[in-house]
Amino acid sequence: MKAKTFEPFAQLKEPPYYAVIFSSLRTPQDKGYGVMADRMVELAAEQPGYLGLESARDAAGFGITVSYWTSMESISDWKKNAEHQVAQETGRRDWYAHYELRIARVERAYSKP
Amino acid sequence: MKAKTFEPFAQLKEPPYYAVIFSSLRTPQDKGYGVMADRMVELAAEQPGYLGLESARDAAGFGITVSYWTSMESISDWKKNAEHQVAQETGRRDWYAHYELRIARVERAYSKP
Repeated sequence: MKAKTFEPFAQLKEPPYYAVIFSSLRTPQDKGYGVMADRMVELAAEQPGYLGLESARDAAGFGITVSYWTSMESISDWKKNAEHQVAQETGRRDWYAHYELRIARVERAYSKP
Repeated sequence: MKAKTFEPFAQLKEPPYYAVIFSSLRTPQDKGYGVMADRMVELAAEQPGYLGLESARDAAGFGITVSYWTSMESISDWKKNAEHQVAQETGRRDWYAHYELRIARVERAYSKP
């Protein structure tokens, strides 16, 4: 398992904000996945409207990554980013046996007291 | 790592629906966590308004669980469930070094083509 290049918990402002919930099952081969995954985390953080990201993947290859954004427009812009589009295409072809992507508006948030 | 008692991907209807995004860092000791976690998955699935659940935890103990619900009211009712309240209290005290809980309205959803 790769070391995380970011803190596990995203430090976010008060809601409302937006979440991209990406759940995926990896294929067995790396095929450049690790390098690209790190790069996408780095690139996402440079985008306008990016707020933070949390990610966990289990030993069976099932993972959930949630990225947080100020607006639906910033999510739409990130989806259209050229380098990200190459990663999305390679993901569909090589890296993910299956994935689900859900876009949501965060209404409330709580932390451990 | 425990075997999953459910399929990794939740099979959901078309949005809108609601998501509880729970990210957490486990403490090192089990202290009944595994048994209770399985029981909460089972109990959640019996609640009115429950749609599905996805969960991944990495080797470092950081995990994300997203449960999906038909309404904010069903989420509120689940939070107040007596057996779940005991689990929440034990979670705060024994199982989680930290957690973040975010409640969101899912607006759009896509699957791998």
